[in-house]
Amino acid sequence: MASNTTGEIFKVTTFGASHGVALGAVIDGCPAGLPLTREDIQEELNKRRPGTSNLTTSRDEKDSVEILSGIFDGKTDGTPITAMIRNKDQRSKNYENLKNNPRPGHGDLCWQKKFGNYDYRGGGRGSGRITIGHVIGGAVSKKLLEKYDITVTAHVISIHECKTEKKFSLKEIRENIIKNNVRCADLEKAKEMEEIILRAKSEGNSVGGIVEIIIDNVPIGLGQPVFDKLDGDLAKALMNIGAVKAVEIGLGFDSSLITGKEFNDQYYLDDGKIRARSNNAGGILGGMSNGMPIVLRIAVKPTPSVSGIQQTINLESDTETTIEIEGRHDPCICPRITTVAESSCSMVIADHMIRAGFINPDKI
Amino acid sequence: MASNTTGEIFKVTTFGASHGVALGAVIDGCPAGLPLTREDIQEELNKRRPGTSNLTTSRDEKDSVEILSGIFDGKTDGTPITAMIRNKDQRSKNYENLKNNPRPGHGDLCWQKKFGNYDYRGGGRGSGRITIGHVIGGAVSKKLLEKYDITVTAHVISIHECKTEKKFSLKEIRENIIKNNVRCADLEKAKEMEEIILRAKSEGNSVGGIVEIIIDNVPIGLGQPVFDKLDGDLAKALMNIGAVKAVEIGLGFDSSLITGKEFNDQYYLDDGKIRARSNNAGGILGGMSNGMPIVLRIAVKPTPSVSGIQQTINLESDTETTIEIEGRHDPCICPRITTVAESSCSMVIADHMIRAGFINPDKI
Amino acid sequence: MASNTTGEIFKVTTFGASHGVALGAVIDGCPAGLPLTREDIQEELNKRRPGTSNLTTSRDEKDSVEILSGIFDGKTDGTPITAMIRNKDQRSKNYENLKNNPRPGHGDLCWQKKFGNYDYRGGGRGSGRITIGHVIGGAVSKKLLEKYDITVTAHVISIHECKTEKKFSLKEIRENIIKNNVRCADLEKAKEMEEIILRAKSEGNSVGGIVEIIIDNVPIGLGQPVFDKLDGDLAKALMNIGAVKAVEIGLGFDSSLITGKEFNDQYYLDDGKIRARSNNAGGILGGMSNGMPIVLRIAVKPTPSVSGIQQTINLESDTETTIEIEGRHDPCICPRITTVAESSCSMVIADHMIRAGFINPDKI
Amino acid sequence: MASNTTGEIFKVTTFGASHGVALGAVIDGCPAGLPLTREDIQEELNKRRPGTSNLTTSRDEKDSVEILSGIFDGKTDGTPITAMIRNKDQRSKNYENLKNNPRPGHGDLCWQKKFGNYDYRGGGRGSGRITIGHVIGGAVSKKLLEKYDITVTAHVISIHECKTEKKFSLKEIRENIIKNNVRCADLEKAKEMEEIILRAKSEGNSVGGIVEIIIDNVPIGLGQPVFDKLDGDLAKALMNIGAVKAVEIGLGFDSSLITGKEFNDQYYLDDGKIRARSNNAGGILGGMSNGMPIVLRIAVKPTPSVSGIQQTINLESDTETTIEIEGRHDPCICPRITTVAESSCSMVIADHMIRAGFINPDKI
Repeated sequence: MASNTTGEIFKVTTFGASHGVALGAVIDGCPAGLPLTREDIQEELNKRRPGTSNLTTSRDEKDSVEILSGIFDGKTDGTPITAMIRNKDQRSKNYENLKNNPRPGHGDLCWQKKFGNYDYRGGGRGSGRITIGHVIGGAVSKKLLEKYDITVTAHVISIHECKTEKKFSLKEIRENIIKNNVRCADLEKAKEMEEIILRAKSEGNSVGGIVEIIIDNVPIGLGQPVFDKLDGDLAKALMNIGAVKAVEIGLGFDSSLITGKEFNDQYYLDDGKIRARSNNAGGILGGMSNGMPIVLRIAVKPTPSVSGIQQTINLESDTETTIEIEGRHDPCICPRITTVAESSCSMVIADHMIRAGFINPDKI
Repeated sequence: MASNTTGEIFKVTTFGASHGVALGAVIDGCPAGLPLTREDIQEELNKRRPGTSNLTTSRDEKDSVEILSGIFDGKTDGTPITAMIRNKDQRSKNYENLKNNPRPGHGDLCWQKKFGNYDYRGGGRGSGRITIGHVIGGAVSKKLLEKYDITVTAHVISIHECKTEKKFSLKEIRENIIKNNVRCADLEKAKEMEEIILRAKSEGNSVGGIVEIIIDNVPIGLGQPVFDKLDGDLAKALMNIGAVKAVEIGLGFDSSLITGKEFNDQYYLDDGKIRARSNNAGGILGGMSNGMPIVLRIAVKPTPSVSGIQQTINLESDTETTIEIEGRHDPCICPRITTVAESSCSMVIADHMIRAGFINPDKI
Repeated sequence: MASNTTGEIFKVTTFGASHGVALGAVIDGCPAGLPLTREDIQEELNKRRPGTSNLTTSRDEKDSVEILSGIFDGKTDGTPITAMIRNKDQRSKNYENLKNNPRPGHGDLCWQKKFGNYDYRGGGRGSGRITIGHVIGGAVSKKLLEKYDITVTAHVISIHECKTEKKFSLKEIRENIIKNNVRCADLEKAKEMEEIILRAKSEGNSVGGIVEIIIDNVPIGLGQPVFDKLDGDLAKALMNIGAVKAVEIGLGFDSSLITGKEFNDQYYLDDGKIRARSNNAGGILGGMSNGMPIVLRIAVKPTPSVSGIQQTINLESDTETTIEIEGRHDPCICPRITTVAESSCSMVIADHMIRAGFINPDKI
Repeated sequence: MASNTTGEIFKVTTFGASHGVALGAVIDGCPAGLPLTREDIQEELNKRRPGTSNLTTSRDEKDSVEILSGIFDGKTDGTPITAMIRNKDQRSKNYENLKNNPRPGHGDLCWQKKFGNYDYRGGGRGSGRITIGHVIGGAVSKKLLEKYDITVTAHVISIHECKTEKKFSLKEIRENIIKNNVRCADLEKAKEMEEIILRAKSEGNSVGGIVEIIIDNVPIGLGQPVFDKLDGDLAKALMNIGAVKAVEIGLGFDSSLITGKEFNDQYYLDDGKIRARSNNAGGILGGMSNGMPIVLRIAVKPTPSVSGIQQTINLESDTETTIEIEGRHDPCICPRITTVAESSCSMVIADHMIRAGFINPDKI
């Protein structure tokens, strides 16, 4: 069943595959009147684009975006916004040996069994490259949230065993992450992380890490109780990103280690505004925002594309075989996943802002 | 925006509040021809019912279920299945002081700000009691999955700082968890966990824990790529359960600590069937099942209802105040949450089984 | 696939069958703060209830409604509103001969083939009795629309060959239809219509007619372009009512008989308000309301339950056979269908009012 | 709220405006394994393309389609199929006078009031040109239905006051409609209709007509009872086409003129297959197909773009004014609407075929 659309009111449908003609997204449900340019989208795409540092795949994706619809007179007009980029630097021949030999750690086996006719070139629509669609949707939703002073910020807090222990303000985080290729707020640790990634790269290996997302300035009461809780929708959006294996909010797994008396965030008035003295809940109670910053963390697995011989099955002959993966791959997806995580969360927040009546669905 | 329905084809809509007339669920989209009795549902409800051991609230909920529609001749007939239980043992007077003083750790503040007219009695629809609806939906989906030999099993692996380190087979887990009130497969640790819970209870405090869910025997290719990934939908369903603060699959957060060469699960043939030598991915790749057991873990926060004075805000006078919570509460929600987690996952799996064409949507 | 829910934001899910335990509806997505009582719903149910005049089936349905959830302190609280009535005066034995012999003109054959296990008693969920759910949903949506001075009025304009040619103001229509059992604004014709129906009844036959629906006072811009046009959604809602075989808006079929120069409704200012000098479009252009009254007409087929021998197929033996229908039936469904049509349209309008941001989704 | 998507499983999202960069559609939910070429889509687009006869607007739209995604190895692969055409022959200057003066009979006023920032050039997304998206979706669904021998055929049965009274077999209809520009099966009447249209054109006027749609060979039980009835969904899809003011099925409005004894279609066995001796119901009972051909008729209003002075309001100054419409327009939309009607119905049928389990959702 169709599943290339996300959102209930602010709906983003994405299309395209790693080695197809084009990739893109249709955003339906963005209110009219939002100023939006090609550059707003291009800028976000540039953040996720590989080939910008030695930490990423050498595939050189220019990823120049074209807006096909939805903008009139420099502003959204309430009709679907469509944007796409054409695929250029494809080397499909690299992938033909994968046709019937699913790569361990990738979704190949599942795609093959499910759909039969499967575009195995570069992982097809299972490739990380399809997050171009996420980022297009994210760019539009970020722009919409900007109007309401809501920011969504993702930063790397650990790579493999190297973890920053320092606390940074949101302002510091936003300033620091653009100063290094790892997108870590701790500039010293960032260097160490970079070394870990380069070492993995030189070994044909890969590493994972942890990314934190902070959503600031959402009004109280965002989210819907019971089955569309804000944390539920954020967890889904984040888990839907390939390579993400865990999501936690607030204290997350450590919640189980303290008692209720320690956990409960006590309310007080800060200049007339309701605040809590701690943020163990991570900004969400009962599935709805309580006005505190929303803080989530995701675990990113090491990129599955590694060198060396791996064991697999040949699906034609139903026999065991081995496979060696070639091609250009990211030794660590964490730095680039920050943009995708920001995009995914932005789409959820934009959708819920309209759903809860904070943003008018037709025009702003 | 309405959010009391879950599922795309197998749709469950729940209704009711802690101290209202009744609670229940409407299941729409269950194929016709499934044998289903009142007892099938009652049995599952009994598992989540409090008052069955000294570990739970003393609220005595008989929770006797009545089926209102959807069964003909002992089998589902393709029309909505409605089941409800009437509320009995309500002590609403306990809650009147909460009207304008939101409890820390609860969703009260969010409900008040969002809806204005808020049923504060016992948390209203924010109460854990509304998971009666989840369990009704879960009972029907479990029965449906049974037909396809799919099982969903939740068991407690830690309470506060006490964690089982032993590995048990699925068979052992299913046998052991019904032998103790904590629903832990490690019978020795279970005793220790029980003591921790009773100690918290005696102190008017509460503790959390970790619950693992194992979904066994799903076919390869369950789940939908991109925005309705199976892990995405399971993460959402689990995070939607009140008190859950984290979800992980397979290695989860520990994924970030090993390299790609270590992480990738290598395929082999086991008596002609494709299997993997490890299950770091937790049974899902690219958002679709790969035929291995699906293994998830959730972190459950300590119940927010604890004794003692807490700081809050009076929403009428906009001043700081304090609150003391009375009433009967669970010192630890983990044992009862196992049933809710099973229900939530079962509904997701049943829905995806139909969505992927493994189960006919009209009749089985 | 589940189809017992209507609406995108204001969602109504109905359940129950003609001879089951109960029938009812869950309304999810009604904003909090709307005053609502049991009587508001009962009153609407009374309008569709049979046994109130000699024009309807003699089945005496008390149809006493009970509200199970969603009301707190006399007002909606943003949680699902559930209401149900228990079936009482059932005579299931009347229907056993229908088990394998589908009645011509009814959906029996389709239900049987589609679901296998089919509740054939009184048509099961294919019975007109299930519109109790529609009317519950309609009662709540009407109450919501009242707040915004929007009215939805259905009246009979023809029964069989007897048609009123007179034009009445909306005020006259609303006053007159409650003065006769046919719900026709033309009190003279109403008598004639009544006679036609009684004659059909005495002959064991049935007749159809035409019902007009007027939706007054909707703001300009209600409805969504392209695939959820307001006329599209109203047409669907009306065609979804059993026995409705045609829907037209404005000039409807007669639109094809005049030219564009005659058809276009010319705008003018009426005391500063934009109005059109004619209403050939029936209040909707481009799928959105233009501020004029929305005027629709539906054709209602003669009730399929008639006396006499009819030809059918025995589905067990796959042979031709005949059937005679017993039981109590309406000789003409038009008078009672007015309430259902009002309900169906009210739900659509309420849903679109929220979708277009005219009503806040969370609280009014 | 977003409304540019149609379908529950077979989902079509369309985008683009009359004078924007491009128009197109994303089809999500088409099972993998369906052979599909660019030509399959181009061929359908050619049918709706104007400029092919003297009956249509002189705007010369080459409408050359490009497939951007979803096809691998000549077949669908279960991922979104995206196709688009770039706008070429635009003369936007024709439309600038319309900016604040809504045209009578068009949706301009509604678009302006609803969205504020409105692309008024050529009607923007309110233009008939956006049905390019419908036809792309229709082409794919037709191709899918072909596999199951289901055909959807639309033909003109009246233009203004000229109506064919002859009955034709489906085979004759399909053969004859491609022999004339009006797409009428009655070749003699077709000439007369053509003259009526040309006369209207020469007078700067326009005419409407009636189009019949026949859906053949659907299995029994297609459609979903209650709120997603097959006739409900078809009525919505057809009413969603601009210019359609009425939809009827089977006897339609004439149903109200005969009695129940005359109306009921009697079943018999035709070579072991269940058939009905008449088809007054038009192939649908209880919202589900009964195996007979589905027969619908729609009324098409005269094109609103006519020459001459018309009365309107200037929305900037809020004063009455007049407008004269220039540009190139169809004097009668009926011939071209046949393709759009076929597309709209095909999408509904394809969607329901999957929903009812007749077509596997993942692969065929």
